[in-house]
Amino acid sequence: MPVDLPFPLAANLKPVPGIELGFAEAGVRKPNRKDVLIMRLAPGATVAGVFTTNRFCAAPVQVCKAHLEGLQITGRMALDDADAAAGGIRALLINTGNANAGTGEAGLADANATCDALAALLDCERSQILPFSTGVILEPLPVARITAGLPVAIANLKADNWLAAAEAIMTTDTQPKAASRTVVIDGQAVTLTGISKGAGMIRPNMATMLGFIATDAAVAQPLLEHMVKQAADASFNCITIDGDTSTNDSFVLIATGTARVTITDPASPACAALSDALISLSQELAQMIVRDGEGATKFITITVEQGASVEECRKIAYSIGHSPLVKTAFFASDPNLGRILAAIGYAGVDDLDVGKLDLYLDDVLVAKNGGRNPAYREADGQRVMKQSEITVRVRLGRGDAEATIWTCDLSHGYVTINADYRS
Amino acid sequence: MPVDLPFPLAANLKPVPGIELGFAEAGVRKPNRKDVLIMRLAPGATVAGVFTTNRFCAAPVQVCKAHLEGLQITGRMALDDADAAAGGIRALLINTGNANAGTGEAGLADANATCDALAALLDCERSQILPFSTGVILEPLPVARITAGLPVAIANLKADNWLAAAEAIMTTDTQPKAASRTVVIDGQAVTLTGISKGAGMIRPNMATMLGFIATDAAVAQPLLEHMVKQAADASFNCITIDGDTSTNDSFVLIATGTARVTITDPASPACAALSDALISLSQELAQMIVRDGEGATKFITITVEQGASVEECRKIAYSIGHSPLVKTAFFASDPNLGRILAAIGYAGVDDLDVGKLDLYLDDVLVAKNGGRNPAYREADGQRVMKQSEITVRVRLGRGDAEATIWTCDLSHGYVTINADYRS
Repeated sequence: MPVDLPFPLAANLKPVPGIELGFAEAGVRKPNRKDVLIMRLAPGATVAGVFTTNRFCAAPVQVCKAHLEGLQITGRMALDDADAAAGGIRALLINTGNANAGTGEAGLADANATCDALAALLDCERSQILPFSTGVILEPLPVARITAGLPVAIANLKADNWLAAAEAIMTTDTQPKAASRTVVIDGQAVTLTGISKGAGMIRPNMATMLGFIATDAAVAQPLLEHMVKQAADASFNCITIDGDTSTNDSFVLIATGTARVTITDPASPACAALSDALISLSQELAQMIVRDGEGATKFITITVEQGASVEECRKIAYSIGHSPLVKTAFFASDPNLGRILAAIGYAGVDDLDVGKLDLYLDDVLVAKNGGRNPAYREADGQRVMKQSEITVRVRLGRGDAEATIWTCDLSHGYVTINADYRS
Repeated sequence: MPVDLPFPLAANLKPVPGIELGFAEAGVRKPNRKDVLIMRLAPGATVAGVFTTNRFCAAPVQVCKAHLEGLQITGRMALDDADAAAGGIRALLINTGNANAGTGEAGLADANATCDALAALLDCERSQILPFSTGVILEPLPVARITAGLPVAIANLKADNWLAAAEAIMTTDTQPKAASRTVVIDGQAVTLTGISKGAGMIRPNMATMLGFIATDAAVAQPLLEHMVKQAADASFNCITIDGDTSTNDSFVLIATGTARVTITDPASPACAALSDALISLSQELAQMIVRDGEGATKFITITVEQGASVEECRKIAYSIGHSPLVKTAFFASDPNLGRILAAIGYAGVDDLDVGKLDLYLDDVLVAKNGGRNPAYREADGQRVMKQSEITVRVRLGRGDAEATIWTCDLSHGYVTINADYRS
């Protein structure tokens, strides 16, 4: 039951000139569902991405990172220079149903094989394809079924296929996730449209499960790399559902360059305008993942203020956001708010003086100077806890730093979904 | 539904000369349940303890630590020397139903008030009483109800009340937890008996929610302090249920000295014999907590071997043990074992070479050199996953260090209990 997730989405999604999307029902894991997506880019598009820090980084993630650096991975896990004459990235290939993670050297060969098949169909090089996979870990990728779906996906490539694309990358998501922005830069309209997926194994540590955003602005490669990292840090890197960092997290930004706007100067107003729109869109897509978190019934914003550093604010915010006891209390709408204090206390901020700490639930001051606020009435806490969207605000009284993350509650739905997911 | 927890316990519990236990139904939170426990010690007993590292350390924990150091906490949160002539600890006072945590300065005054009341009844000083509380956080301690129960508890002080004592400290525990050991040292029988409680908010980081062990050996104070820490590190500090470190964790070791055995030399065989018995008893009590974990249906042992350091082995073991996805897969008996690899990968061991890693489920080699073992068959994984006790063994292939922790699965029962606990 997603929390306040806009639906349907299609009416608001804007095509991005220079990118076409096509899908297939390839039967990767189950029949009769979109599970293969191709995103074909115009020549000259620039692409940058950020990826999981999980050491069991999936095979497609390893291949992606190599291809973005103009390298390719050979069968013996070594890196070779790709054909330098090949040019930039021409297509993204995404499958659901299988993560191709924990698959060792065979997994790398499988990821390469899917890239080879698409490169042959699009008349480009393997290193011009970026592969992405999401789904079950530790199972061999069904390469033949995926490659058999490629001609179908190519046949339906269209610029206005964003909603279908969002559907094609869903796993345990209950709704597709997509949004657009339009921003006028130097008198020209620039479009940004993106999709994301993910509902469990969500605690991105570079980017989320899968997120793709395209714009028709032209953006120089080093600047694009800076922008994708900045946007990830302000969005996907601020969410958690269950604390489980995925093996396949990938967030990719594409600039097709078909609009008559070229961004080269990071200090320019044009760059700021595009960055602002990008961050806003990334946050919407990231929050959509939380709103559709497995079993989620509440959308929780956790803000920690007056910290000595952003790092300690994030530590405390995540400690609250990961506590199963806090999350089940939200599910129950039970203002058992001492659990939040306990989570703050074990966050690992060793010199924290709890005597200076205040805790708010929306506008309700629950704890003051580390103890119960004498004016706090349980009825006030109860009123806020019943809402579907709640803000937890912690004031540490020891500095000017702050951080915000977004998370959801822990319900029976989460247990049901994850006890049944593979069955 | 506890996992293989021995019941009933009473037949095996041995009194420890020099310690008597008495309880009352004081109605701290709910009527008609044992919720106040007194443990009265013979003069000359030595006492040592380890306590939570949670920064929201509860008021009674702060008072305990002061009293063990011969200090007392005044009303203004300052430490004063206690009456030096008062002598050692004479009694422990434990209440359930209210944690007296997140209660600020008023909480300290309340903890002192209960100590004062018991000290008056036992004709000793406030600083000779150790107070302990467990239950809901952020609510004022009902001092009057607790002190009203003290005369009843004193009236039924008996040496063979250990089972009733174990019952008196239960909160969401479904069964009392207690065990005994007898060890012959220097030709004399020495007894150790202990109790523990806890089922949620369990990720001890010094000791567990509440654990008390008494022996009739005489043990010198510095050695007792060493032994309690060593035992905690080998037992309560190796368990987790939900990753939530409590504000009230306390583990206390009492040596009444009534047996004709005196331990003074840490290098002596006598000390080794007592230590071995103490660690064995502590592990049984700690594992009882996991077996009775909130909603637990499986008891999971996680061993990480061949690490470069014990610290990295523990990091990886806890990463697996805290993953909601791993824990729900155990609940479902679903060998979705890629989730274990993902948890290993995000454990924060930055230079981990997953290509050297093997994963066993009991005797089944699931992953070899970081990928699926070609000989692995899902039926073998399924067989082990259906058991009520399972060992996960990870071999890192990078050193000689190892660590073991114990945990349980995450079930609908956990969500139900924690969504309803306070209601």
